[in-house]
Amino acid sequence: MIDHLKPVVVGPDELGAALAAQSVEEVTVDWRPPGAPGALKRLYEDADRYEAVQQANEDVMRRIVSARARWTAVRAAQTEIPGLERGVLLHAGPPLDWASASGPMRGALIGALLYEEWAETAEQAEHLLASGQIELHPCHEHGAVGPMAGVVSPSMPVVVVENERYGNRAFSTLNEGLGKVLRYGANDPEVLGRLRWLQDVAGPALGQAVERGEGIDLTGIIAQALQMGDELHNRNKAATALLTRQMAGALSLVCDDSRDERSKIFHYLAETDVFFLNLAMAACKAALDPAAGFTGSTVVTAMARNGTEFGIRTAGTGDRWFTAAAPGVEGLYFPGFGPHDANPDLGDSAITETAGLGGFALAAAPAIVQFVGGSVSRGREITEEMYQITLAEHPVFQLPALDFRGSPVGIDCIAVARTGIAPVLDTGIAHKRAGIGQIGAGIVRVPIEPFVDALESLVV
Amino acid sequence: MIDHLKPVVVGPDELGAALAAQSVEEVTVDWRPPGAPGALKRLYEDADRYEAVQQANEDVMRRIVSARARWTAVRAAQTEIPGLERGVLLHAGPPLDWASASGPMRGALIGALLYEEWAETAEQAEHLLASGQIELHPCHEHGAVGPMAGVVSPSMPVVVVENERYGNRAFSTLNEGLGKVLRYGANDPEVLGRLRWLQDVAGPALGQAVERGEGIDLTGIIAQALQMGDELHNRNKAATALLTRQMAGALSLVCDDSRDERSKIFHYLAETDVFFLNLAMAACKAALDPAAGFTGSTVVTAMARNGTEFGIRTAGTGDRWFTAAAPGVEGLYFPGFGPHDANPDLGDSAITETAGLGGFALAAAPAIVQFVGGSVSRGREITEEMYQITLAEHPVFQLPALDFRGSPVGIDCIAVARTGIAPVLDTGIAHKRAGIGQIGAGIVRVPIEPFVDALESLVV
Repeated sequence: MIDHLKPVVVGPDELGAALAAQSVEEVTVDWRPPGAPGALKRLYEDADRYEAVQQANEDVMRRIVSARARWTAVRAAQTEIPGLERGVLLHAGPPLDWASASGPMRGALIGALLYEEWAETAEQAEHLLASGQIELHPCHEHGAVGPMAGVVSPSMPVVVVENERYGNRAFSTLNEGLGKVLRYGANDPEVLGRLRWLQDVAGPALGQAVERGEGIDLTGIIAQALQMGDELHNRNKAATALLTRQMAGALSLVCDDSRDERSKIFHYLAETDVFFLNLAMAACKAALDPAAGFTGSTVVTAMARNGTEFGIRTAGTGDRWFTAAAPGVEGLYFPGFGPHDANPDLGDSAITETAGLGGFALAAAPAIVQFVGGSVSRGREITEEMYQITLAEHPVFQLPALDFRGSPVGIDCIAVARTGIAPVLDTGIAHKRAGIGQIGAGIVRVPIEPFVDALESLVV
Repeated sequence: MIDHLKPVVVGPDELGAALAAQSVEEVTVDWRPPGAPGALKRLYEDADRYEAVQQANEDVMRRIVSARARWTAVRAAQTEIPGLERGVLLHAGPPLDWASASGPMRGALIGALLYEEWAETAEQAEHLLASGQIELHPCHEHGAVGPMAGVVSPSMPVVVVENERYGNRAFSTLNEGLGKVLRYGANDPEVLGRLRWLQDVAGPALGQAVERGEGIDLTGIIAQALQMGDELHNRNKAATALLTRQMAGALSLVCDDSRDERSKIFHYLAETDVFFLNLAMAACKAALDPAAGFTGSTVVTAMARNGTEFGIRTAGTGDRWFTAAAPGVEGLYFPGFGPHDANPDLGDSAITETAGLGGFALAAAPAIVQFVGGSVSRGREITEEMYQITLAEHPVFQLPALDFRGSPVGIDCIAVARTGIAPVLDTGIAHKRAGIGQIGAGIVRVPIEPFVDALESLVV
């Protein structure tokens, strides 16, 4: 799935000739960008139109990079998310029906029905789901994002993140921590018990702590964490530690009644390195949403996977999804597992890459590259490659290993189609059976077709 | 003060000839290592002796890199540090008398007398100090280390750090935070008030929190923080955040009586990015002390500055100091200040470099190099240069930017004398007048003479 991309000549013949004239060793490949020659040709032949697209993209990028995300509250999902009511569940990725749902997605959906007590047994839950009595909607269509299966049900507590610059909001669940968790499809009593503890104890306490001050500046924490080895997708250790340090005083005050609860919440924050992931995802979603609906813009506003399909949305096409089969993940497996155990790629967490973090900021996180089996320089190479398909260098998200260059942000479907370079995600690998959980981590290059299809749709 | 060292031929002529034969462009310099040709010659001509030194150094390095430092308690200095009694103060660096003490050192010593109520006014304090009625001892001679002026008085709370591998202990004060602080020579009521709060409130609470569990694994936190942009001298942000996250639960339980105190302690930890520095210093001191007293070993066990002199100790020479004038610091100044305002280099914090951190781990901390006016690659260059004067790559302290190579540790006086490369520290710059505080930060190359003198003394 991974190409170690090297400088090969894939453009006009003139380019290869130019390199040859400079004694540069070139490799000529019989290759054309996968599709969209029509759209590219139409764009390049119509200067006014091309100019209009560039202008729309500039406007979009100004919006995206000027976002400031603030965590302002924790609330029950049903009180904040319109349309999330009894009989409705949200899930990660593009639209999905039960019949095509993968193992971990099915496990998580069943778990949500048990948690909401809409079913008493897994069999009852499965029947309700299979018979179409439960509506399934993508998180993204309700302003939300969720890691892995990304299932959100009405009673779950969600973090409320505001984009101060544009006034829009985004939501995500609280991270469940490690071990057996709903997001990997586990749904036994231990999993449901932890979800109820998040709902009854941790969620309200965290919410009160956040509301004591003026909220938490997530954009600021993300910028700092990029200086501290996080890329905010697979590694959120620095961000979680900075957040905990910042909130500890307020948290200790709001939990004044129960020493046990206070201790348990601090323990949860201390043990859950990935706690900040859900906040980072909501911050990215909040930053990208104001870009939707810019006529003509070819900038990607969401990438997401539901375990069956990978899909994107663009600024110019708004709510419409462009999809392809979810890719497999190239990576390292935990002992006892291998590629045949792996579910196709899963989760809304690719919103981090869409906003210039995760795989796009891999140069900031050498430990992640090592964890997935690569060298430190491989991380820098991937980030540097992503500059070729993005429109801006983020003014706030800076990468120390690249001499504090801004991270590559704003995926342009034109650039993807022109270069044939697909975005790279770094991600966890889920077992294809529900509830087994994470079995590895790696790098995935997403399919290029949705970007080409979106471009064809934008440039008709 | 800084040389951008490049590969120049400074060794035997054969070396230059060998490079020339390989078409390597060489620069031949009329230069000899500054001193110690006698000691080096004696060593190189006596194979048995050279072998014995190598063996001693190997034994020493095994001790240093196998240290495991654990923070186990906070206690009053006088109950833990033998000889620290009424009329005695500890200070940073090699031995010092009042007459030669610099401005910030004098301010801190006066402040300590006021804090201990051995004097009622600064004038009384100065009289007691100038007339020799107060004994001044280096921290290092009492198992302690202190940043900048490094003054420790009997009533101050100190952290107790144990080297689990060898059973020895080291001590340091609690960091006072930013602003007007004793370690920069400030001594007004606000400064003394904060010191009393550390003694009465924060110290006991932190101590109880530490003692609730099995203490805090400082070596583990240091190893993690190196992956997160800290070099543990000028930057301790990640380490402080990791520590706070780990201690928050216990801390919130031991401060159960007073919401205000609890909140104030968490606020202190949240605001004091440099809180971990004093713990890192004590951890390094605890790691290096078991190396003292190895006959013949040329490994440096301490580097320290008192604001007037720079001094070192080696394993083979034990408690003896080898000194030279304290160097100036090359760096960036805060607005309104310049080199003429700067005190010569100050503090025991160079114990971090002695243990493979700080300037030696500069490759890990791009933000520090940027802060002191250098590029990211400059940090890597400095770390790479330090491998030339050290004997080991630390098995636990790994540097992501160098593909997780262990940090350079174990400064060898032979290597310093042979190469002419002096150790590099990254450090804060103190104003030369007491109490003004930090006026900049930079890089300092320490004088080479103490290393040469130590070698001459070791190889007679």
